[in-house]
Amino acid sequence: MGILLQQGLVMVSDSLTNAGVDQIAKFRKMTIWETPGERVLVLMTAGNLAVSQAVVAHLNEGLPVNGKSESMMTVNTAAEAARLVGAAVRAVDAIDGAALRQSGLDFDVSMILGGQIAGGPLRLFLIYKAGNFIESTPDTPFFQIGENKYGKPILDRVITFGTNLADASKCAIISMDSTLRSNISVGPPIDLLVYRRDTLKVATHQTLADTDPYFAEVRAAWGSGLRAVFSEIRNPPWDFG
Amino acid sequence: MGILLQQGLVMVSDSLTNAGVDQIAKFRKMTIWETPGERVLVLMTAGNLAVSQAVVAHLNEGLPVNGKSESMMTVNTAAEAARLVGAAVRAVDAIDGAALRQSGLDFDVSMILGGQIAGGPLRLFLIYKAGNFIESTPDTPFFQIGENKYGKPILDRVITFGTNLADASKCAIISMDSTLRSNISVGPPIDLLVYRRDTLKVATHQTLADTDPYFAEVRAAWGSGLRAVFSEIRNPPWDFG
Repeated sequence: MGILLQQGLVMVSDSLTNAGVDQIAKFRKMTIWETPGERVLVLMTAGNLAVSQAVVAHLNEGLPVNGKSESMMTVNTAAEAARLVGAAVRAVDAIDGAALRQSGLDFDVSMILGGQIAGGPLRLFLIYKAGNFIESTPDTPFFQIGENKYGKPILDRVITFGTNLADASKCAIISMDSTLRSNISVGPPIDLLVYRRDTLKVATHQTLADTDPYFAEVRAAWGSGLRAVFSEIRNPPWDFG
Repeated sequence: MGILLQQGLVMVSDSLTNAGVDQIAKFRKMTIWETPGERVLVLMTAGNLAVSQAVVAHLNEGLPVNGKSESMMTVNTAAEAARLVGAAVRAVDAIDGAALRQSGLDFDVSMILGGQIAGGPLRLFLIYKAGNFIESTPDTPFFQIGENKYGKPILDRVITFGTNLADASKCAIISMDSTLRSNISVGPPIDLLVYRRDTLKVATHQTLADTDPYFAEVRAAWGSGLRAVFSEIRNPPWDFG
């Protein structure tokens, strides 16, 4: 999930990929391009891992844009970065899409890109498999990709554009916890990156394993807190026979 | 959702169907066949409404089984009822399936059947669109169909086979609340039916509109309780820059 706030950006991803229940592996889904004082760009991917890795390879190596090669380290604005990700998705589709479809597989990928480049605003994009994209606005301050439904209710309840970075991080961990509990294909470690608006450097990038004390504390406190709230609500006033 | 407990059964369904955002209508998705002292059978449907209604019509009118016509009011056991629902699904597929597929539509339906007939045990089944089915066991005491992911985390946290009918009803309302908040295609009134094991009559059947005082109380208490638990959890111990 990617959350765009007045204070900045919170980006969170898990690390499990699966190609069937006997092919589960750990791969980070977050890629960071950072030049402190100049640019912070963070990309998270969901869907086909080979497609995702090919897209990231293109973004590192550069793609032809208006006759010259552009990479995530050379684009001049966050919007150019989003267009470059879209172009990379289309380039991979042009190379691999036909063969994937011939194998009965969908060309399946979606991405969240957030970040800021000196001189421009902080932006957050959701990029589709067609390479086109939408942008977050204060009315819709977060995007989710991949297995997103279990973790959405708490985001819907807590996150607004005015939520601060600490609360949004805490909420993102709780949201991820709900997903972890209900879907075995989502798993730690959790990558959590926080960027404070206009600082042009990553504020913190945590890799939360199951053993991380704060991660464990939040999961335990949330679980016992929910059970406490549940038992405080009075029983239905109906006759149960 | 259908929940099978040591004490009995809790069945809950919403009432919205949609065929696109400009064709949203209210239809109850719960059908009850009850002869007090003899049988209680409760069916909930998800998916194509025309298919669901055709299945229910077959179950009322009767289907040929071993040379005679059987309906939900004549079957002798809950297992026979589940097989009859499966037969009704296959009968509708035989009549309408080809035309649906020709229109580019899936033959899309799933059902939860719970109930008890005198002389037999209380049972809960999940019936697939192929007409085959699985049965709930104490290890897996609930089934969900339709838009189920938003509401699953609280069920995962609270429901066990030993949960009592009042707690399970409260939990089902909270689960439905999470879904109502995150998906506009799910909406009240909520049908909530409770059956106490071996009583052979419906204990209570509530139709909860937005204006129902207990429904409103649970939704408000859950929302404010979650926010309270959230603010009691300490902030992440990281430097946010």
